[in-house]
Amino acid sequence: MSLIQYLSKIHFDFGAISLLASEIDALGLKKPLLITDKGIEQSGILERVLDAAKPHKPVLYTGTSENPSEANLEECLALWEEHGCDGVIVLGGGSPIDLGKAVALVSTHGGKFADYDVKIGGSAKIGTVAPQIAIPTAAGTGAEIGRASVMTLNNGLKCVAVNLKMVANTVIADPELTLSLPPRLTAATGIDALSHGIETYLSSSINPPADAIALDGVTRAAAWLSKAVHEGHNRQARWEMMMASIEGGMVLQKGLGSAHAMANPLGELHYHHGTLIGILLPPVLDFNKQAAPERIDVLRSVVKTDKALHDWLGDLVADIGLPNGLGALGFDETLIPEIAEKASKDHLSATNPRKADVADYENLLRQSM
Amino acid sequence: MSLIQYLSKIHFDFGAISLLASEIDALGLKKPLLITDKGIEQSGILERVLDAAKPHKPVLYTGTSENPSEANLEECLALWEEHGCDGVIVLGGGSPIDLGKAVALVSTHGGKFADYDVKIGGSAKIGTVAPQIAIPTAAGTGAEIGRASVMTLNNGLKCVAVNLKMVANTVIADPELTLSLPPRLTAATGIDALSHGIETYLSSSINPPADAIALDGVTRAAAWLSKAVHEGHNRQARWEMMMASIEGGMVLQKGLGSAHAMANPLGELHYHHGTLIGILLPPVLDFNKQAAPERIDVLRSVVKTDKALHDWLGDLVADIGLPNGLGALGFDETLIPEIAEKASKDHLSATNPRKADVADYENLLRQSM
Repeated sequence: MSLIQYLSKIHFDFGAISLLASEIDALGLKKPLLITDKGIEQSGILERVLDAAKPHKPVLYTGTSENPSEANLEECLALWEEHGCDGVIVLGGGSPIDLGKAVALVSTHGGKFADYDVKIGGSAKIGTVAPQIAIPTAAGTGAEIGRASVMTLNNGLKCVAVNLKMVANTVIADPELTLSLPPRLTAATGIDALSHGIETYLSSSINPPADAIALDGVTRAAAWLSKAVHEGHNRQARWEMMMASIEGGMVLQKGLGSAHAMANPLGELHYHHGTLIGILLPPVLDFNKQAAPERIDVLRSVVKTDKALHDWLGDLVADIGLPNGLGALGFDETLIPEIAEKASKDHLSATNPRKADVADYENLLRQSM
Repeated sequence: MSLIQYLSKIHFDFGAISLLASEIDALGLKKPLLITDKGIEQSGILERVLDAAKPHKPVLYTGTSENPSEANLEECLALWEEHGCDGVIVLGGGSPIDLGKAVALVSTHGGKFADYDVKIGGSAKIGTVAPQIAIPTAAGTGAEIGRASVMTLNNGLKCVAVNLKMVANTVIADPELTLSLPPRLTAATGIDALSHGIETYLSSSINPPADAIALDGVTRAAAWLSKAVHEGHNRQARWEMMMASIEGGMVLQKGLGSAHAMANPLGELHYHHGTLIGILLPPVLDFNKQAAPERIDVLRSVVKTDKALHDWLGDLVADIGLPNGLGALGFDETLIPEIAEKASKDHLSATNPRKADVADYENLLRQSM
């Protein structure tokens, strides 16, 4: 079993879920609230996790929306109050994880989630939040070790709270829980994990430990993503992809790049984030190749290709069955100027190795159709 | 400027010391206690750091012993009380850093340092300690991002407190402060940084992010240690060695090996830790070569040598002017059985890739004479 501790304490291996009861004890929790969604409940994973929690009996919330909402938060807080909860267990992908952070925050700090909006300086007010245990069920976002929570407010606006104090205390990363993830979700989440390593490694800030971890994650994802998609029960492939995903989450602090800068505004139209990244990253790599030729070559060597990096990635995206253009998602190209404008202002654009302005983003989006 | 954040927030670059005043403000400190030693005071580094702290005027303690003692701690606590201090700035190598953690602990928790001894379970009682800013003046131990404090008690015994809550909030790593470090200290501390990467990478636990960072640190130290020793004012060499040192500190969590397992009991005889490591690590690498042949080969490739790894390291130790045997330190070889016994029981022996028993340690110590 592997114990990794940078910001979160991470238990990583097949069977790590067996540590759940002792980790609940280690945090001193008497009445945790377990937050998940209907998909996880129906897959049978929830049942296995509840078994691992025994003798603890967490209060259950299975209503997390695809985009976690203020209504979800209010339901969780009502359960928290009713049962006297004292900590959060989140089980699932990015949505339960975001919701769990929001519950850990508002249950201890009071007020509304919007009070902690990073844009109005609210996130700086965040102190110690309720203890959290995060259990990812996909290898992708790395959100389980993240510091941010994105919620859709009752008024329809998105709101983000970000503070290191919201990082989960404990992560239990058990690749066993990903063995039955369907190919399409394995592909879309896996390409996201790969992209975190690639965009981070190419980003313009200076952070050698992040670069080292990023390259390790890219090496693993490049070697194993296709196998994880095509042979879902390949245990090593699932182990390697989950490690690549955690490593992707660890390195985000260095800064991402233009593919994520476009995926953010496009995500507001409710496309799957990883699917967007698979479409957007190849043209971004082509765009970046003159700005960071040596780093592109290092990436080519760790993914073991003789092709141009963007061609290699485009081939991988096709191999794992993801759509190769925004058109295939039904994206209306008259929206390109608006998305390009937003992408150019996205904070993730700032660390792309080649400066991209609105016209560049319009070109990149047209190439991505 | 580089911002790195795993457990500590690390500002890293030439000129990073200019952030000291704003980091004191960021932690909300009104009256920090600055802990350092006479050597740092005489070198002129203290004066530059006090300049960077302005308008803050830290309370000063310059009396840190080579092995920080309970008497040092009592003197610091008296200053803390007298001036109403609210946080610690440590400036120096491992000794002020250990003392600073002890002050941050006992000033907030009360009692005696020995109450928090890890051997009696005391470290588990540690909660939030006083804020700490650590400013390393050598590239070696990586203690500035560590979680442990070792103190010599008034009764002469050594006592260790270890808890993640004792990790410094902020590290300011400015290679400028190491430019005037003499060759011998540059060599002895630098070989320690290199050894952390090597022993960690070879250690038997599973921690891929630590492995990735370790290899990056080894790559840098192998390429630049000799230059840092022979051309002390080579700025890139100092930058690379300081990065290797921080990276070494980040990866210790994976576990070390037999060289450190022997250096611990030998250190009780007051030999310099890094000097010991330079002597002990080559025979340990020879001993380990059959247990981890692939990893040894990876290390050979990142240090760019065609020689056996232990020969390469032995040559480097000679090149940088460190003693090549315990005999040269005046070590009495009749003590070998006692040291071997202690090394075999040291917790760092457990993660050496090849199991080493008392007889193995006796052999290793004889080879190290």
